[in-house]
Amino acid sequence: MNKKYEMVKNAAGRMVPTEVNGKAQVPYQGVNGYRPVGHKAAPPIASCSDYPMDGNKVVGSIKEALQLAGLKDGMTISSHHHFRNGDLVMNQVFDAAEEIGAKGLMWFPSAAFPCHEPMIRHLESGLIHHIEGSLNGPLGKYASEGKMDGLAVLRSHGGRWQSIQDGEVHIDIAVLAAPTADSIGNATGDRGPSACGLLGFGLADSMYADKVIVVTDNLVPFPCYPWQIQGQNVDYVVVLDKVGEPEKIVSGTTELTKSPDRLYIAELTAKFVKAAGIMKEGFSFQAGAGGTALAFAIYLKEMMIETGVKARFVRGGSTKYLVEMLEEGLTDYILDGQTFDLDGVRSMRENEGHVNTSPFTSYNWHGKGNFASLLDVVVLGATEVDVNFNANVVTHSDGQMLHGIGGWQNCLFSKCTILPIPAFRDRIPVIVDEVTTLVGPGELIDVIITERGIAINPLRSDLIEATRDSGLPIRTIQELKAEIDDLIGGSPQKPKLTDQPIGVVKWVDGTVMDTIFKIENLK
Amino acid sequence: MNKKYEMVKNAAGRMVPTEVNGKAQVPYQGVNGYRPVGHKAAPPIASCSDYPMDGNKVVGSIKEALQLAGLKDGMTISSHHHFRNGDLVMNQVFDAAEEIGAKGLMWFPSAAFPCHEPMIRHLESGLIHHIEGSLNGPLGKYASEGKMDGLAVLRSHGGRWQSIQDGEVHIDIAVLAAPTADSIGNATGDRGPSACGLLGFGLADSMYADKVIVVTDNLVPFPCYPWQIQGQNVDYVVVLDKVGEPEKIVSGTTELTKSPDRLYIAELTAKFVKAAGIMKEGFSFQAGAGGTALAFAIYLKEMMIETGVKARFVRGGSTKYLVEMLEEGLTDYILDGQTFDLDGVRSMRENEGHVNTSPFTSYNWHGKGNFASLLDVVVLGATEVDVNFNANVVTHSDGQMLHGIGGWQNCLFSKCTILPIPAFRDRIPVIVDEVTTLVGPGELIDVIITERGIAINPLRSDLIEATRDSGLPIRTIQELKAEIDDLIGGSPQKPKLTDQPIGVVKWVDGTVMDTIFKIENLK
Repeated sequence: MNKKYEMVKNAAGRMVPTEVNGKAQVPYQGVNGYRPVGHKAAPPIASCSDYPMDGNKVVGSIKEALQLAGLKDGMTISSHHHFRNGDLVMNQVFDAAEEIGAKGLMWFPSAAFPCHEPMIRHLESGLIHHIEGSLNGPLGKYASEGKMDGLAVLRSHGGRWQSIQDGEVHIDIAVLAAPTADSIGNATGDRGPSACGLLGFGLADSMYADKVIVVTDNLVPFPCYPWQIQGQNVDYVVVLDKVGEPEKIVSGTTELTKSPDRLYIAELTAKFVKAAGIMKEGFSFQAGAGGTALAFAIYLKEMMIETGVKARFVRGGSTKYLVEMLEEGLTDYILDGQTFDLDGVRSMRENEGHVNTSPFTSYNWHGKGNFASLLDVVVLGATEVDVNFNANVVTHSDGQMLHGIGGWQNCLFSKCTILPIPAFRDRIPVIVDEVTTLVGPGELIDVIITERGIAINPLRSDLIEATRDSGLPIRTIQELKAEIDDLIGGSPQKPKLTDQPIGVVKWVDGTVMDTIFKIENLK
Repeated sequence: MNKKYEMVKNAAGRMVPTEVNGKAQVPYQGVNGYRPVGHKAAPPIASCSDYPMDGNKVVGSIKEALQLAGLKDGMTISSHHHFRNGDLVMNQVFDAAEEIGAKGLMWFPSAAFPCHEPMIRHLESGLIHHIEGSLNGPLGKYASEGKMDGLAVLRSHGGRWQSIQDGEVHIDIAVLAAPTADSIGNATGDRGPSACGLLGFGLADSMYADKVIVVTDNLVPFPCYPWQIQGQNVDYVVVLDKVGEPEKIVSGTTELTKSPDRLYIAELTAKFVKAAGIMKEGFSFQAGAGGTALAFAIYLKEMMIETGVKARFVRGGSTKYLVEMLEEGLTDYILDGQTFDLDGVRSMRENEGHVNTSPFTSYNWHGKGNFASLLDVVVLGATEVDVNFNANVVTHSDGQMLHGIGGWQNCLFSKCTILPIPAFRDRIPVIVDEVTTLVGPGELIDVIITERGIAINPLRSDLIEATRDSGLPIRTIQELKAEIDDLIGGSPQKPKLTDQPIGVVKWVDGTVMDTIFKIENLK
């Protein structure tokens, strides 16, 4: 059943719906075009009179906690994704909601993973009306096929904070899996048998939700410290045998590449950063958890050691590679948004310089500044880039919505944003005339690095100037594209899209940047 | 000029004004009688578009920062008191406001100290209309004399948080002195040449004020970590030569008593805690910073060592005595709300178990629980106690308003609240028929300990039972009072109070517990 959407053209020339999941939308107005008005969301005032004086908020089960929290049809239930594909809580939460007999719920995870495939049953039964959040794997496919009631709403990590803070998304009940907690609800991710690092993606949920349920498998005597989640925001605590499988947080994108092409791209990227004068004493960088970005960090580290240069801070997603840099004294701080492996978890627990951050400090665009714009250089992936440096990270060239945005949009505000990408994927060129889905505006993307050369955004004459005599293979993006298309024998067929929206991409300010349409050959 | 107030009788039988400083009030309705309605205060939504992308918020002077923050007549300016009598910032702030030509401001410090005597000039000129906050020393005297426009409003630390969070007090501009900060506004109190420990009393200000100014004398490269105040809440940073004299945080009440009577009271208190079975493995306690309370902690420590008992946590105001306990392994944690000496400052910086807390986690009554009610025993001071165990901590028996409430009211929710107090002060008995000012309801006060014996609140039959055979000098409060009055030759003259309110005492829930009246022989 196709739903009709009224569409308008936004400032990027993209057609976007005026209403999404029953809420009026503001179309994208340019990178700095939209100014918010009004005040932040304001949670209900609680009273200690209504909470146990001995601080013991433990209840018997998830079902009991949901009932006490007043679960009703149409409510929004939120969760964080720090266990990534190892989450053992949220399927149980919706199974319990089914037992209670709820209907039409919105699930608002910071991201969903293949382990959440059982939610498809709940989507089909009407228990879950729709999901707003990054949809990886089977749920992404399900939504791509247009089967979900309502639209998928893809937000960056900062955009998710913004949407909660600004009251665009009202969370009725937050369910926060916690590797360690005490009975008043203080919780931390950095210790306990299921330690996953930090809980920053659940912080806004804990602050703004009407009711907050902490679910742990490691209840400790008060105080649970650090208290990444504060018990004064928590209503109920549930103790389970096991809340997550931390060994599975490594799943997904966090493995070092072995491809010679990609290793070469990573090396080129590190050389570019050095040649441009970015790699200097006290600098900062962020590299995503993709294979190429990890390899970049390793090359950069070698150069830092050679040159005797130390960073002031690096931003994670932390991995053992960043942890090594911290422990070898190559950076004063890791400012970490999520741990991508167990070395990251250990380091966060052990190293004072390994600091847990939240989307508020790192990414929220509707704050008084954030960390992302302070970075000297950030290295990110992309599925497509166009000749105006616009980039896509959520759909593939075949139009399928398969990735979340993560911190990607937020990171674009760094002083130098580099996308190291292969020239082809499955013989499909990655540089295109127009991206299938616009996720990052070209004016914020400074450098594209492929195995066939480097293209610098003409807006960055400073970078062009700085690297002119570097000996690096610097070309125009048009030259790069022409060469790649030549090799392949012309631009490939674009996917045939229907006019049926199946999702939208939000910009960091909550405006609608683009629409994801259903593909014609999919049912 | 006396102002007329409409007065009503509250649930404690006290006459309280229905309006204070232009705002309608709710009279006290009993310890758990009042339930808040509505939502928390909601600060304006900001946008990174309006803040420097390089994070540099440093401006040239306090005056410039106030102007950029839009200082206008009638605004409320807030500050924290972590420098206690060593604050060097707030006098400069109001001098700058005077230069700008502002009028009718409200100063909303978490406490004022003798060093703030220059504010009297601003009160007299009309620059400051009135002050809401603990008034110690000359400002307390000034208000006691009825010279201040508007009423003094005395709140507990938790009550101050509650009043900001609930929107009772709207802060236009917060000015937060910070011993270390970076240019984006991250700030910490635990390091730097003026290190004062923590900044928790300014945390609500940073979260809820429209504009936030951080003033530091130690600007460090980003990131300033720990970030007790988060730069994402900060608008401007000002750098001065010196923001505070940390050696003066020891001023006030934080010296160990040398009085034999008080040492005896302290010892009795420790013995009572042991006899009542409170001092057991994993217990917790809080002792204020008064001389007797400090001595109690030392006696208790000796008993803990003798008995081989360890605490799970102690609550500070931290002093070297608590720090020794932590460093000797006698407690796992100090949960600290303010450092009272430089050992406390050092320990907070060095010891992972010395945790900085805020009034939100510790004391706020309008949260989902707080730490205060988890304590096994708390030892506090008082200026007067009546035969129903009601207590006073803000006025002396002569009626003068000379003390703030601090965390005193909040601490009453512990599992056992003990007031160790001398039987006399300046030959005036401390146990009275009716307290001059009601600050703590008797139902929350469990034990009174004087050098003439111990009185247990009849409501606590469990404590009476537990200590029956302890050999401690346990009496009824009536017996104690009779003996003391006998010694002095009858109850003393009560101070003659006028019917002119000069201040009010708020309960932890924002309701009005009592009125402070002007004394007849004062002008």
